[in-house]
Amino acid sequence: MSEQKTFRPKARLPRGFRDRGAAMMAAERAMLETIRRVYESYGFEALETPSFEYADALGKFLPDQDRPNEGVFSLADDDGQWLSLRYDLTAPLARYVAENFQHLPKPFRRYQVGTVWRNEKPGPGRFREFTQFDADTVGSASPAADAELLMMLADTLEALGLKRGEYIIKVNSRKLLSGVLTLAGVQPDKAGIVLRALDKFDRLGEAGVIALLGEGRKDESGDFAKGAGLNPDQVAKIMRLFTDDADDLTTVAGYDELKEITEILNSAGYDKERITIDLSVVRGLDYYTGVVFEGQLTFPVQNEDGETVVFGSVAGGGRYDDLVARFTGQQVPATGVSIGVSRLMSALTQRNLTDGEMQPLVLVLALDDVSRSFAMARELREAGFRAEAYVGTKKFGDQLKYADKRNAAVAIIEGADERAAGTITIKNLKADAPADTKDLQDRAAWLGARLSQVTVPRGDLVKCVNETLGRKA
Amino acid sequence: MSEQKTFRPKARLPRGFRDRGAAMMAAERAMLETIRRVYESYGFEALETPSFEYADALGKFLPDQDRPNEGVFSLADDDGQWLSLRYDLTAPLARYVAENFQHLPKPFRRYQVGTVWRNEKPGPGRFREFTQFDADTVGSASPAADAELLMMLADTLEALGLKRGEYIIKVNSRKLLSGVLTLAGVQPDKAGIVLRALDKFDRLGEAGVIALLGEGRKDESGDFAKGAGLNPDQVAKIMRLFTDDADDLTTVAGYDELKEITEILNSAGYDKERITIDLSVVRGLDYYTGVVFEGQLTFPVQNEDGETVVFGSVAGGGRYDDLVARFTGQQVPATGVSIGVSRLMSALTQRNLTDGEMQPLVLVLALDDVSRSFAMARELREAGFRAEAYVGTKKFGDQLKYADKRNAAVAIIEGADERAAGTITIKNLKADAPADTKDLQDRAAWLGARLSQVTVPRGDLVKCVNETLGRKA
Repeated sequence: MSEQKTFRPKARLPRGFRDRGAAMMAAERAMLETIRRVYESYGFEALETPSFEYADALGKFLPDQDRPNEGVFSLADDDGQWLSLRYDLTAPLARYVAENFQHLPKPFRRYQVGTVWRNEKPGPGRFREFTQFDADTVGSASPAADAELLMMLADTLEALGLKRGEYIIKVNSRKLLSGVLTLAGVQPDKAGIVLRALDKFDRLGEAGVIALLGEGRKDESGDFAKGAGLNPDQVAKIMRLFTDDADDLTTVAGYDELKEITEILNSAGYDKERITIDLSVVRGLDYYTGVVFEGQLTFPVQNEDGETVVFGSVAGGGRYDDLVARFTGQQVPATGVSIGVSRLMSALTQRNLTDGEMQPLVLVLALDDVSRSFAMARELREAGFRAEAYVGTKKFGDQLKYADKRNAAVAIIEGADERAAGTITIKNLKADAPADTKDLQDRAAWLGARLSQVTVPRGDLVKCVNETLGRKA
Repeated sequence: MSEQKTFRPKARLPRGFRDRGAAMMAAERAMLETIRRVYESYGFEALETPSFEYADALGKFLPDQDRPNEGVFSLADDDGQWLSLRYDLTAPLARYVAENFQHLPKPFRRYQVGTVWRNEKPGPGRFREFTQFDADTVGSASPAADAELLMMLADTLEALGLKRGEYIIKVNSRKLLSGVLTLAGVQPDKAGIVLRALDKFDRLGEAGVIALLGEGRKDESGDFAKGAGLNPDQVAKIMRLFTDDADDLTTVAGYDELKEITEILNSAGYDKERITIDLSVVRGLDYYTGVVFEGQLTFPVQNEDGETVVFGSVAGGGRYDDLVARFTGQQVPATGVSIGVSRLMSALTQRNLTDGEMQPLVLVLALDDVSRSFAMARELREAGFRAEAYVGTKKFGDQLKYADKRNAAVAIIEGADERAAGTITIKNLKADAPADTKDLQDRAAWLGARLSQVTVPRGDLVKCVNETLGRKA
């Protein structure tokens, strides 16, 4: 070998990314299957678009030459075109629809589940890749399409085990908000700051929003947030959104849509406890043009600082009638819902609603003849068990440590004596508190320390494992 | 609106990537579930690593500053470190094991399914992202670990529906190959060209390989491939690999491992028709250090040029004892198998073994009262059907076209007359040849053109759809 000093990279997870193990993967898979089942039962069909899109197709995140990675992960292809990893599943859908419009059913209804990437500063619980589960109806301007998504989202949350009252879906209309802003004489360049203020209604209450619409507001830390600078008359006109007596909204664009959606929901039995109009819902993305909504979980959880907070948003969506037009010039009405998979899973975990239980593991130890262990493991698998023949070192102590680390439920042991007698030992590893295997390097001590084991004829392997795991034969 | 000319990006799929629709996704999902079930039944557990790794962790594909995208997709993070999208699932596993070694069970057995990316020139059927399904045992030097992967691969291919004789798993040892090269006095710098020549045994036969080991070989097109330049004695020594009388290999390193693997396989009943020693198997990747193997499909298929060819390799793997040592300096024995998901699925499709059948779609048309359509769709879903209420335009002709495009099995119609009479019409869309809906813009003509419809009481919706689809009530 060369005497040269070898370069050894440090093994390290990239910043803002994570590894995930078996339990988390199983829980997520079960959750995704439930969502998929509900979406498919509504007639939405799977579509998969690639991880990359041309950067110009992603719209507002179009990177510039100097900062190609602002917000998205981008790189130049060898033909000079910029590629970007998708940051959501909506922009790729718009590209797909624009490219294949002729051949698609109208409306086109697809679901997509997949990884999306954000090139942002990572933080605790903030990752740079995560999973979204979207469903969209493209090519229908009907409020029925929006109402359907709202009902489907409610059904999905309930299929995942959430009870009535543990979630609420809040619905609003961007069109209605714009109409109210126009009525109040708000200049277009102030629309952004006004909408952001309204979006804080849940958190800051009426007084806080009024302050932000006017001169501004000092927060708990003493920092002053400059307001939109509207006059009191304008503020009053806007705040009428939040009164029950919002009759004069009937003439505002967007009102009729919300009304039609409400009527469909009522007639379908989705009451206000599940889906409700809430005029403070804004949603961040620029591309919404009509109905917007947010699915929130209402139960209290502990946050990272140990404070009790309401869990909040796990899904959102709305109508975006202009997104396809970016490519074709032709407006195609579209509406969609997106579930934030990681956030929702974290909520379900806190509620003990994840279903990632793995089958108990039967571990066949390998004392001398590994072929016989393989044969036993195969027999167990054919009987429907998750069964593994140990393939590491021959040391018994190592095998015990392994059984503990793998959280095995049952160990099968066939030593030379047992083989001569035509028997095997079946050990129930869940019957006792886990032994500290560090002190149990020899087999006799380990076997002696645990009572729940049986020695049975080799031919009774499957039958006795069934009994040990409490299954019906 | 502004008079300025708007920038309109062209909607186009990035070069070397693809969109995939519902049927393909369903087939792939079913296939992945089968592989997962087999792997889990053997005790392998899921792990997910991120899409990105630090470029230096990926080893030989480490990009240089001038050509950061050679082979892999790479970009500089904002802290100056280079990130690369994973090009396989093995390099990330090595990083994971090196980083978490202390806490892992030994051996550590994980499976991972995921997208990998290659920044290569795309071609027909060659994509720049695809799916791999890997299982690895890290921390066992035992040939039992290799034998287990071989058996598991055979079980997986059979669980997917392939019959004995439709696949063969060929096993070799890199150590044995090196030993033979040393015995034949081949200089280390010629090892690469010699191994590549041996790898062509299947395609070129004995004479072809002998030519490539010696002076060289002229192919069908007349091009001359320069050979390894070995002398006849060396060539003869190497070609002894391929004779049945390979007794003098018994002293070569690697022979014992292959022998032990064969004994385990024999004793477990995996005969030569399923898993066989084949000394021409080389495998491309540099990192293999011991056993190497390849799972091939043996049945003939049509290639893109319409020629009949043997399908070939769908899986491969082997032992790589040095990969973790790249990080830690400490050798950790490891062995793994990787299934090329797209290639295997294309094979299963040609054999009609894919199982992506979707439930028939029941489409509830929306003539005037969409709330009533939603109620019917919900009733059908609750009875276990895939049922969709049409949410597009009110035009009946559009709804018929939609039913055809969606390949719906049953349409439910409740017009004003039917509603007044308390009935609905249930139309079996699969009973007739699909009508040309272009000429059927009006409902009466369409209904008249098809006989297989019944008008039934509204209350019999579920019962009659059951009957129409030939299900038991």
